[in-house]
Amino acid sequence: MKFQRRGPLGSEQPVVVTDDGAFDLRPLTADVDAAFLAGGGLAATQEALGAGRLPRLDDLPERVGAPLARPGKIVCVGLNYRDHAAETGAAIPEEPILFMKDPSTVVGPYDDVLLPPTSRKTDWEVELGVVIGATARYLPDVDAARAVIAGYVVSHDVSEREYQLERGGQWDKGKSCETFNPLGPDLVPAHEVDPSALGLRLWVNGEQRQDGTTSDLIFGVDHVVWYLSQFMVLRPGDLINTGTPAGVALGLPDQPYLTDGDVVELEIDGLGRQRSTCVRAEVGA
Amino acid sequence: MKFQRRGPLGSEQPVVVTDDGAFDLRPLTADVDAAFLAGGGLAATQEALGAGRLPRLDDLPERVGAPLARPGKIVCVGLNYRDHAAETGAAIPEEPILFMKDPSTVVGPYDDVLLPPTSRKTDWEVELGVVIGATARYLPDVDAARAVIAGYVVSHDVSEREYQLERGGQWDKGKSCETFNPLGPDLVPAHEVDPSALGLRLWVNGEQRQDGTTSDLIFGVDHVVWYLSQFMVLRPGDLINTGTPAGVALGLPDQPYLTDGDVVELEIDGLGRQRSTCVRAEVGA
Repeated sequence: MKFQRRGPLGSEQPVVVTDDGAFDLRPLTADVDAAFLAGGGLAATQEALGAGRLPRLDDLPERVGAPLARPGKIVCVGLNYRDHAAETGAAIPEEPILFMKDPSTVVGPYDDVLLPPTSRKTDWEVELGVVIGATARYLPDVDAARAVIAGYVVSHDVSEREYQLERGGQWDKGKSCETFNPLGPDLVPAHEVDPSALGLRLWVNGEQRQDGTTSDLIFGVDHVVWYLSQFMVLRPGDLINTGTPAGVALGLPDQPYLTDGDVVELEIDGLGRQRSTCVRAEVGA
Repeated sequence: MKFQRRGPLGSEQPVVVTDDGAFDLRPLTADVDAAFLAGGGLAATQEALGAGRLPRLDDLPERVGAPLARPGKIVCVGLNYRDHAAETGAAIPEEPILFMKDPSTVVGPYDDVLLPPTSRKTDWEVELGVVIGATARYLPDVDAARAVIAGYVVSHDVSEREYQLERGGQWDKGKSCETFNPLGPDLVPAHEVDPSALGLRLWVNGEQRQDGTTSDLIFGVDHVVWYLSQFMVLRPGDLINTGTPAGVALGLPDQPYLTDGDVVELEIDGLGRQRSTCVRAEVGA
């Protein structure tokens, strides 16, 4: 079972896809959002599917949107793979490094990535995204984390390295440009995923640039969720980007940052595949 | 004219207050939120008031909530007053330093501020808050900024200095704890405020700690809005915290950080006054 949102940007409709095909989720909910997740929407979907109460969709809207309506927040973990920390010249962190992205950066998995007009260092980052399904504050231990995770998703943490690293030192400045978080295509419920050893891969113009596995995470998914809950309240519909493995442009010898027309593809085992074209943003558009 | 939201947390009702008293805004809108601001709600309120179409409220709900429903994002400018940069030992920034807060940290102007269970360095920061009223992306110049500002508000950028500065170096970690952004009481429309010389003041247990003026901002309101629009899309309902003047605990000789029972009061000329009690957060509550 996986969730998708399909249709034009801003008016996507919720869909659930199983081995038997695609089904309309609108009898249950208007959207895959915080309220749906908080209200036990995943279990209700399973039940409704079993009871045959969701109409089959034979004509799916073509465009695939992000599988989660706008998150309440996007929290990211920096330098969470040893090989990526090494390639950027950073020390291995002793505890998770946190930063945030504007939640309105989320776009669909096949939408264009807009390069800011003055950007010379826009970079890619394939990441396992964790979608929160229940409120978490001051979780007592790592074992309590799993219960608040609704599901997993492919998340592209697009990053402008000059803005991130050379314009004051707080990373958020290079993480929140328009369209900088393609998400999806699928939101897969947590109980169907073992997040401990998922392969993550990314290609630019067909050339493979990243080839990692979540088994190399310095701080695993449950640890990250527990840790975050000590510093902020996690709420249904929040998105956590858990970090990227080695292979980003910043870490390559010739630093081949993204340019107009580049095509970035990324995938994670069991969570689907994205494909975005880079397009220089037009001012005034 | 100023906007308030009154009633129990999570079910506040919108109110507009004028020299003639308080009026029920519900004939116009269910809330003071992104949709209301984007749809010209401020002008519509003025018109409805003039036409006598808003019922007078004689029995106002006692609790005052944040005057803006949950922002889409909260973007903050760091070290934006010379005296505050100096007291923290930081250099004067050459351009705005940006960081973010979890939008769900917003609470009302008289609600408790919860001190995290392990916090030893929770600090205060009175700030002029800017509420965005129209979409802004890549604004051509500083003069274009004023048109996208809906109004101004007192914003308390509560900060945990150990989490912010000693736990990895990215400030967001110390900015997003539960209840860390008391807001209000009033949202005052931009056309009624000259943001260039507003006094900001803060007291802890009656002792004045901050006494600044926005005329000392390194980067003024319009510059900040223009600048932000080069790095992210500002949208109606977004909140910008523009920085704090000198006088925070971090900069005082004895670093008198907040403790259980402390009362923090803060005010900005024309925008009202907050009063929060600090209470140690209970785990499991």
